[in-house]
Order: sequence, then C-alpha cells, then structure tokens
Amino acid sequence: MKILQRISKLLPEIKARKPLIHHITNFVTVNDCANITLAIGASPIMAVDGAEVAEIVSMASALVLNSGTLTSDSIKSMLIAGKKANELKIPVILDPVGVGATTLRNEAIRKLLTNVKIAVLKGNMSEIKFISGLDVSIRGVDSTASEEGSAEAAKKLAAQLGCVVAITGKRDIISDGDITFFIDNGHEMLAHITGTGCMISSLIASYSGVTDDYLTATLGGIISMGIAGEIASRALTNDQGIGSFKVNLFDCTYKLTSDTIIKEGAISVYERKD
Amino acid sequence: MKILQRISKLLPEIKARKPLIHHITNFVTVNDCANITLAIGASPIMAVDGAEVAEIVSMASALVLNSGTLTSDSIKSMLIAGKKANELKIPVILDPVGVGATTLRNEAIRKLLTNVKIAVLKGNMSEIKFISGLDVSIRGVDSTASEEGSAEAAKKLAAQLGCVVAITGKRDIISDGDITFFIDNGHEMLAHITGTGCMISSLIASYSGVTDDYLTATLGGIISMGIAGEIASRALTNDQGIGSFKVNLFDCTYKLTSDTIIKEGAISVYERKD
Amino acid sequence: MKILQRISKLLPEIKARKPLIHHITNFVTVNDCANITLAIGASPIMAVDGAEVAEIVSMASALVLNSGTLTSDSIKSMLIAGKKANELKIPVILDPVGVGATTLRNEAIRKLLTNVKIAVLKGNMSEIKFISGLDVSIRGVDSTASEEGSAEAAKKLAAQLGCVVAITGKRDIISDGDITFFIDNGHEMLAHITGTGCMISSLIASYSGVTDDYLTATLGGIISMGIAGEIASRALTNDQGIGSFKVNLFDCTYKLTSDTIIKEGAISVYERKD
Repeated sequence: MKILQRISKLLPEIKARKPLIHHITNFVTVNDCANITLAIGASPIMAVDGAEVAEIVSMASALVLNSGTLTSDSIKSMLIAGKKANELKIPVILDPVGVGATTLRNEAIRKLLTNVKIAVLKGNMSEIKFISGLDVSIRGVDSTASEEGSAEAAKKLAAQLGCVVAITGKRDIISDGDITFFIDNGHEMLAHITGTGCMISSLIASYSGVTDDYLTATLGGIISMGIAGEIASRALTNDQGIGSFKVNLFDCTYKLTSDTIIKEGAISVYERKD
Repeated sequence: MKILQRISKLLPEIKARKPLIHHITNFVTVNDCANITLAIGASPIMAVDGAEVAEIVSMASALVLNSGTLTSDSIKSMLIAGKKANELKIPVILDPVGVGATTLRNEAIRKLLTNVKIAVLKGNMSEIKFISGLDVSIRGVDSTASEEGSAEAAKKLAAQLGCVVAITGKRDIISDGDITFFIDNGHEMLAHITGTGCMISSLIASYSGVTDDYLTATLGGIISMGIAGEIASRALTNDQGIGSFKVNLFDCTYKLTSDTIIKEGAISVYERKD
Repeated sequence: MKILQRISKLLPEIKARKPLIHHITNFVTVNDCANITLAIGASPIMAVDGAEVAEIVSMASALVLNSGTLTSDSIKSMLIAGKKANELKIPVILDPVGVGATTLRNEAIRKLLTNVKIAVLKGNMSEIKFISGLDVSIRGVDSTASEEGSAEAAKKLAAQLGCVVAITGKRDIISDGDITFFIDNGHEMLAHITGTGCMISSLIASYSGVTDDYLTATLGGIISMGIAGEIASRALTNDQGIGSFKVNLFDCTYKLTSDTIIKEGAISVYERKD
C-alpha cells in the first residue's frame, strides 16, 4: 500500500539523520518520551526554561508541546519556543493533554493555537472535540458519537487550523482536511501504562524531523506505536502485566523495521477529497 | 479473616470504577506512582499548578499529597487542593516524605495538618515520630524503640488527628485510634528501589477512592504492595536485581487478585478498644 | 592492577556505609539516578528548593549538580548547596549537561565554577572542550580532535580547576592534572538509552561519599557503569532492545562485585607526571 511504503521509507531516514526533538512536556512521562525518541532512532532534548528554549529549539528538527503538567512558566516557554519554531520552519507537534478539564489548560491551548502555527495536533477524542468547540463556527462536534462523526470533526478541524489533526483511540483518525485515514493497529495494553499518548507525540515528531510531509509523519508515529504495542503484547506470558509490557514496548520500538511496518500496518482511507 | 475479605471486596471495585486519583507529588517517582495506580485499576492525574488544582481535585475520588520534592509553589498547590478536597469530602492521603529533615518540610506539613483534614497519614517511623512530636502534648514517642511503643504512638496520633495513621516498615502498623493492626507482608527488595513508599500512598488512595472506610483502604493499599513485593521477589533469578524486581512489581500488582490477598495476606490485630 | 584494587575496595564501603547522595538534577533522568544510586549501595535524596538545599546537603556525603533541565530557580539552589558543601568539605560532582548550547547554561556553569570548588567535573567531549574555552588562557583545545589532544585538554583543565576532570566517550579520559587514565569499558547500547551520563555522575558521587580520593572515586563510578553495561548487553537476546537493556543495567549494577571490577576492568595510564 502506497502510504505504508512512504512511512517505511522515513524510518531509516530517522536512524540515519537522528533528528533532535525538543520537548516541552510534562514531568510524569518525560523519561519515557526521551527513551522512545531514542528507540525510534532520533535524539531527545527536554529544556524548559524560558531563557533558553529559543536557543534549544533553533538546534532542533521538531518541537513537541505537551500540556500534561502545565505551569504558568511552562506556558510562557511553549509560546517562546513555538514562535521561534515557526520563524525557523521547524514543525510543532501539539499534544493538548487534558484540555477541557481546567481553565488553565483551555486558556493555554487557546493561546498556543492563536499564536503558534501547529503542524500536527494530536489528542484523544474528548480533547479534539473540546478544541473544535473553542471555535463556535465549528458545529455538530458534540454530537459525534459515531466514527463517521469523529472523522468529520477531524477533517473540519484540520481544514480550519491548516494542520494535520489526529484523534487517537481504538481506531485512530488522521486528517489533513483533504484526506482522512483510519489506523487499526494498537493493543488495549497501551492504555494500561502511562505515557503512550505522550510517546506517540514524540514518535510523530521524530518522523516530522525528517520530512515536511507531516501527514505521513503523523501516520508513521501513530502506526509505529500501534505495531510495537501489538508485538509487545504478543510476547507477554500469563504472569506478566504492565511492567513487562512497557519493557517490551521499548524493545519492539527499537527493533521496528520498515518491513514490519509494511507487513503489519493497518491503514485505510476514510475519505479523499475529489 | 474478616479484614482480608473486606479488602478483597474493594479490589474489584477499583477495577470496575477506575477512581481518578489526583497526585501532587515529587518528580522523582511520579511516573512510578502513575503506573502503580493504573496497575491496581485506578486512574492517575498529576496536575500541580495552583491555578488548576482545585478544578482537578474536584473531578477526583482521592487526593495524594507527597512532600518528596517540595517547593514553595507546590506547598501552595497542596493547600488549595487539600481544602477543596475537604469541601467536597474527597479523602486526602498525606505522605510527609522527609519531614523532620528541613524547616521547609516541617512548616509545610504543619500547615497541611492545621489547614486540611487528612483521611490517611502514612510515613515511615521517623516521619511519624516527628509529626507526633510537633504537638508537645504527645509524649513518650521519642523513646518508642519497641514495636509496642510504635503501635502506641500510631494509635495516639490517629486519635489526636482523627484520621488513619500508618507506619510502614518491616512490620507495618496501622491504626485509626480504636483498632491497631500489624501487617507482615513485604520483602526487603522493596527498600532497594526508589518509590515504593510513594507508590503505597497511590495504592491507599486507589482503595480510598471506592470506600469511605479509610482504615480498610489503608490496609488494602499497604498489603497490596507487600504481597506484590513478595511475589515479585520470588520470581527473581540469581542474576537479577532491582531492575527486574521493579518490572515484576508492576506485573504482580497488575495481576493481583482478591483470592491472592486472602491467601497471602498477613494481618494481625495488635489492640482493639473495648 | 593497583588502581582496580583500590576501586574494588571502595565498593563494599559504599554498601556498608550507604552514603547519602544529594542530587540537584534534571527531571528527565532523576528516577534513574535515584535507582542507580540505590543499585550501587548508596542512598539518594533529590531536594531542589532553595529554602532547604543547605539543610539537605549538610546531611549528605556528596552532592551532584546536573544542568540537564536548568531553571533560574535550580541555578540558585545549586549555588546555595554548592557553597554549603564546600563549607562542610562535602565533595561536589558537576555534570555540565548541554553547556555550550545556551547562554543560560553557559552562565550557570561559569557561576558554579567561579563560586563553588568542584571535586569532579564530568562531561562529554564537547562539554569539557567548551568549559576549557571559557578561560581564554587555555589554548589548543578546539583543535584536539585526537585522543592525545583530549587527554591533554583534560589534564590542563584538571590542573587549572584543581579537580578531577573526566571526559566520557567510547574511551573515557580521567585526569587530576598529575596522572591521566583511559578506561575502555562500556558498550554502545549505553548511548541508546537516556540517562547513562547522569547515572555515571551518581555513581561517581556514591564512590566519592566513602573516600576523599576523588580520582579513584571517579574511575570507580565510570568503570562500574562501563562494566555493568557490558554485562547487560551480553544478556540480550535478538528480540530485545533498549527496554531490556535498561532493566539489565540496573540488575548488573546491583550485582556488581569487587571481583568483577578486577576481572573486567580495562584501565590504562596515559601519562603520569614525573
């Protein structure tokens, strides 16, 4: 399948070029994000202070902004780094963790979306729905219990923001406004450890560091975690649980090959613009 | 045994109801706390900024306050979240890590105990002794080298604070002022990795999220870690150490069943009020 | 070999005396630093707030300062703790992560080197080169592509700062200005996980907590990680990657013995002052 081949060509690029991925992220899963970035072949850096993030992002090939443990300081740093990234045409991946839950997060995400051009917006269903609702001109999103409804919401939001929008879940939905994909890889164990959502953003950023086709990069990041999760779960014995699964997940991401992506990848097109 | 059966009935409740556990905790073991919360079946959230903790705790079923890497900002957040939790009758689990070591920690814990109604206070011997000594009306605590003396100290402090007090150690002591229990589960390897104390608080909070019997919840949290630690250590080969032990510990907590709690639990009553 | 025997005599000292190692370090690898400190037999503490670091370091046997995720607050805390450590003759291990990359880091490291007497400065080649260049009286460092050149740079900087200087890499270089060693232990997998550099500083500090021979302590810390990395990699199966390697690394550090250090240690003298 064409899209799987495009993804599979990017993976060796990551390993060859080792793009530097600047993260401004939460302190809960930051170590996991660093290790998954290394596992796929890229190179992580995690600077947070407003006084240095512009310099750090200037050396990077992609920037991840994650609102998991937001503070007033980290919001300022995200804005500085995001604007600098825009200036230098470095792609920004926004993971609006917990948006909708508090005023602090809602205001921060609104500010980021207003002031920073995002390349990829990746969230779960409720996060993406909430963001869609931030603009009252987007309608019908709250009633999108169906898969088609979610895909339509992703498509609309992608067109509105001019970026790739990804909704992760049992079936992942990825759209750039023109074409919308489903990914059916993954395993329920991925929801039983902390950090898989954050790590997907690191993987999307790693792919985005070697191409300016951010749609393919997003598909690559999500499918890499999904396939690694499937292989990691298969290797579990009856006595093993989330401890071993997490170890396997890093092993399988590290061992992931282009061939495996082509063989195991389950991508389908939901809709393509004429 | 009656108490083990009460605990064993709570475990499936956690898995069914997935209570949200808000942690304001240290950045050293926060990832472990999130994963152990998931392993037992609950759901972790780790917000810290004073501007959002009241909103976050309002969605939660229990709140953990841990002073491991206290800052002036996190103390303020703990006070805000603790007061809000009290208002909403959400149980607060206080883990006064390192109290007694510095003025910052002593003042913070004093402020928390003065301003927030605690449901469960859990510490090691020296932390609980120090807190007992904060009130000069408590006597004899410094001379409690004996197990009986420690049990008396826990009982007195529980009665004074009107909460459950737990002293973790080789033999754990848990009292609500009326009844005092010993737990003899656990394994020395638990002291060879960082975070087991913090994770016990996460487990106590997970149990406290599905019952208002905080004494049983505390026993449940401590015994779950103790039994998981025993099973995790049994599985180690000669070549394995703390790396494999930690993986096993998450596996065993994830796999822990009500039957195993009843079969392996070692609880005894030290003293019961007439 | 004499130096390996000196190192091997320190290891049981760590396990017997469990020196308390105060870290002011980054939040990416702090959990790994705590666990490697426990694995070698020492005891970690990670306080960061400026209001308590002087009290914390006063209880410690060594202090690690790591600039991985520096903030204006943590710089202040490092200065307070460093000065207090000097006053109490507690050795300070400086890991200038990312120095050279940003003004914030450069100024912080300059301030630390100016105001705090360092016992051990440990960095990678580019970090140590940058620090050498901070003082214009040091020459020739930028042209030291060769191993001899690097060794000369380490030697000069050690003499200038009056401390042990370690450059970690495929071949590690360690000098106190009078004698310069090479270490040829280690494995490429160590570069594929985050935190091995930070953990080496924790190990150096653990050794420095039981001797005032900081040269031997530095060799001990570096060689312990190198040997553990070699053994950890040997145990990997074909399907395993960085997840299992990291687990093995903690296991192997925990299981490391004096005999293994003597048997596997690969230290050579580059140059000894007459």
